[in-house]
Amino acid sequence: MSPTKPPSGLRGVTAGATALSYVVPSGEYLRYRGYDIEDLAEHAGFEEVAYLLIHGRLPNRAELAQYQAALRDLRRLPTPLCDVLERVPADAHPMDVLRTACSMLGTLEPEGQPSRLAESADRLLAVLPSALGYWHQLRRTGRRVDVVTDEPTMAGQVARLLTAGPLTDERRRFLDVALILYAEHEFNASAFTARVIAGALADYHSAITGAIGALRGPLHGGANQAAMELIARFNSPEEAAAGVRSMLSRKERIMGFGHAVYERRDPRNDIFKQWAGRLSPAAPDGYLYAVSEAIEEAVRSEKRLFPNADFYCASAFHFAGLETPLFTPIFALARVSGWSAHIAEQRADNKLIRPAAQYIGPGRLEFVPIDQR
Amino acid sequence: MSPTKPPSGLRGVTAGATALSYVVPSGEYLRYRGYDIEDLAEHAGFEEVAYLLIHGRLPNRAELAQYQAALRDLRRLPTPLCDVLERVPADAHPMDVLRTACSMLGTLEPEGQPSRLAESADRLLAVLPSALGYWHQLRRTGRRVDVVTDEPTMAGQVARLLTAGPLTDERRRFLDVALILYAEHEFNASAFTARVIAGALADYHSAITGAIGALRGPLHGGANQAAMELIARFNSPEEAAAGVRSMLSRKERIMGFGHAVYERRDPRNDIFKQWAGRLSPAAPDGYLYAVSEAIEEAVRSEKRLFPNADFYCASAFHFAGLETPLFTPIFALARVSGWSAHIAEQRADNKLIRPAAQYIGPGRLEFVPIDQR
Repeated sequence: MSPTKPPSGLRGVTAGATALSYVVPSGEYLRYRGYDIEDLAEHAGFEEVAYLLIHGRLPNRAELAQYQAALRDLRRLPTPLCDVLERVPADAHPMDVLRTACSMLGTLEPEGQPSRLAESADRLLAVLPSALGYWHQLRRTGRRVDVVTDEPTMAGQVARLLTAGPLTDERRRFLDVALILYAEHEFNASAFTARVIAGALADYHSAITGAIGALRGPLHGGANQAAMELIARFNSPEEAAAGVRSMLSRKERIMGFGHAVYERRDPRNDIFKQWAGRLSPAAPDGYLYAVSEAIEEAVRSEKRLFPNADFYCASAFHFAGLETPLFTPIFALARVSGWSAHIAEQRADNKLIRPAAQYIGPGRLEFVPIDQR
Repeated sequence: MSPTKPPSGLRGVTAGATALSYVVPSGEYLRYRGYDIEDLAEHAGFEEVAYLLIHGRLPNRAELAQYQAALRDLRRLPTPLCDVLERVPADAHPMDVLRTACSMLGTLEPEGQPSRLAESADRLLAVLPSALGYWHQLRRTGRRVDVVTDEPTMAGQVARLLTAGPLTDERRRFLDVALILYAEHEFNASAFTARVIAGALADYHSAITGAIGALRGPLHGGANQAAMELIARFNSPEEAAAGVRSMLSRKERIMGFGHAVYERRDPRNDIFKQWAGRLSPAAPDGYLYAVSEAIEEAVRSEKRLFPNADFYCASAFHFAGLETPLFTPIFALARVSGWSAHIAEQRADNKLIRPAAQYIGPGRLEFVPIDQR
C-alpha cells in the first residue's frame, strides 16, 4: 500500500462497540448475544431470534406467542402504500421495492419519538413481507392478493407470498432457518450504514431505508443473487468447473466467496449447504447442487477461497422455489431485526459518526472568470 | 474514555481519500477542488459549482449553458412519481418526501449501468426540486402546480416553488449562494453514508436515498431547522440571551454550534451571516437577526463555541421566505451534487467499507429450551 493512501474500506478499524453478535476472523463460531448460530438454527424460530436481538434475551413461551401474534396483526398494508407499490414498475429490482416501501411507510407512520423504535420495528418486520408479496403477486399474476394470511410465522408468510411450487413444512422450516442465519452480522456494510444514519439522530425509517440500499450491492447482500446467476449458467459439474477456472484465469470475480472478516470459513455456510443438499432431490433442477459443489471446489483449489453464507444460500433459495431477484430481499426481511437492534444500540451511546478524509486534490487554485476559461 | 471502549464516531480516523473538498480543523479555508468557497460564493452560480464537483473542473461559458439547459429539460415529474407524492401525507417531514421521491425515481429510472452516474445525477438534481415543490404546493394550496418553469437555475426553481413572499433577484442570488455553500463538505455523515452504500456497489439511487436519510438527523443537516426553532422562540435579543444562558445551565444542547472537524470557525458561516444581515431589513420579523446575534454571543461566552454554517443559514433562509421544515431539504437539493461526486470517487477506487466492532456482549451462552425459560 502506498504511503499516501490510507487503509481502505476501514478494514480492521474498530468503528464502535456491539453486544449483538460476535464475529471472529477464524470463523470458528458466530454468536447472537452469546448464542451459537448452530443452536439457534437447530432449535429456535426466526421470531425468537428477532426478539433476542431487539429485546436482549430469548423470550419465554408466553412472550414468544405474544410477539408472534403482534407481528401477525401488523401485516396489513396501508392503502397509500398499496397505491405506491402498484406504481413501481414490474421490472424494478425487488430491493428497490423494499427501499421505497420502507421510505413511504416512514411518511405514513413516522417513528416520531425514539422511544417508539420497538413499535416501528415490529411494524416493519410484519409489513415488509406484505409489501414485497403484494408487488410480486401483482406483477406475476396481475392480482391484488390479500397479504393478511393465517401463517403464524414470517417464514410462512414468505413461503406463501413469495415462493412458487409446493408449500411444504420442510420449505417453511428452511426459510425460517435462512431468516435466522441472515438476521444479524455485526458491523457489515448495511448495519454500519444504519448506524451512521442513526448516529446523526435521524429516524428509524431513514436508517433502515439506507441499510436496504447498502444490502442491495453485490459486494454485500446482492452476492446471493450474483452467486445464483453464476450457478444457473452451468448444466453439469464438469461444465461448472471448467467455466469457473476460465473465469478465474480472466481475473473475473466470483461472488459468494471469501469475506471481509472471516479468513478460513463462514460458520453460516455449513448450515446453508446442508439445507441446499436436503432440498435438492425434490427440485426439478436438483443437479445445481452438484454444480455448486463443483464451483466451490474449483474456487477453493484455484484461489484458496471458501464459500460464504451467500453461496449455498443461493441454491437452497432456488430449490425452495424463490425467484433469483428475491434472494437479497429475503435477506433484507430478516436483517431488519439486526438493523433495528443496531439502531437502538447506536442511540443508547450515540456520537455522530463522522470520519476524516485524506485530501488528495489540488492545492489552492485561483478562480478564473468564466469568460477566461 | 474507558480502555474497554474504542474511540467513538470514527472522529479523526481517516476513512478514505477525496479530491472533492479540503476541510481543515482551523477553519481557515474551505475549498472545493482547490477553489476557495468565498470565491465560488462571490463569482459562481450553483450549476457552475455542481459541474466542478461532478465533472472535475469549472465549465466554460458554452459548457455551463449546455449544462443548465440540460438540467432545465429534466425537470418534468414522471406521472407515477406525482401519484406517489400525492399519497405522502401533508404533515410528513419534507426530508421524508425527498427520500421517498429519490427511492421511487430509482424504480422508474434506474441507473442500470454505473457508467450512467452523471446522467442519473443530472436527472436527480433537476427533478428533486420539482418533487418537493409539487408536494409542497399541493399541501399548501391544494393545487397540482406545473413544476416545469422557465427559471434558468435551480435557485430560481427553489425560489419559485418553495418560497413565500416577493420573488426578487436578491432572494434568487442568496439561494444560489446557499446552494453553493451546502454543495459539498468532505466526509460528513451523509456523504460517508453514500460512500458506504456505493462501496457495496449498490446503485446511485440507493446511495443518495441513504444520504438523504442521514442528512435529516439534527446532528447533521437537521441542525438548520433546529436552530430556527430555537431562534423563533425569542422576541428580543435580551430574551434570547437570557433564554440561551438558562438552557445552557440546564445542559441543553444548542443546535448550530461547534463542529466535528472545525475547532475555531466554520468558513461558511461568515457568508451566511452576511446574507442574513442583508436580507433582514426587508423581512417582517427582521429582529430575528439581532436575536441570532444574541444567541451567538451567549453561546460563545458561556461555552466558547462558534456558530457553524447551519446557524446563520437558519435566519437567512427564514428571511428568504422559506418555511422552517424546508431548510434541510434545500441543503439536500444542493448536496446531491457533492454526494454524486463522492459516489463516483468511491467507485473509481472501490473497496467495501466494512469496519470492525469491539464485542461487548456476553461470552458463550448455553441455549435454553423455550419451556425452561
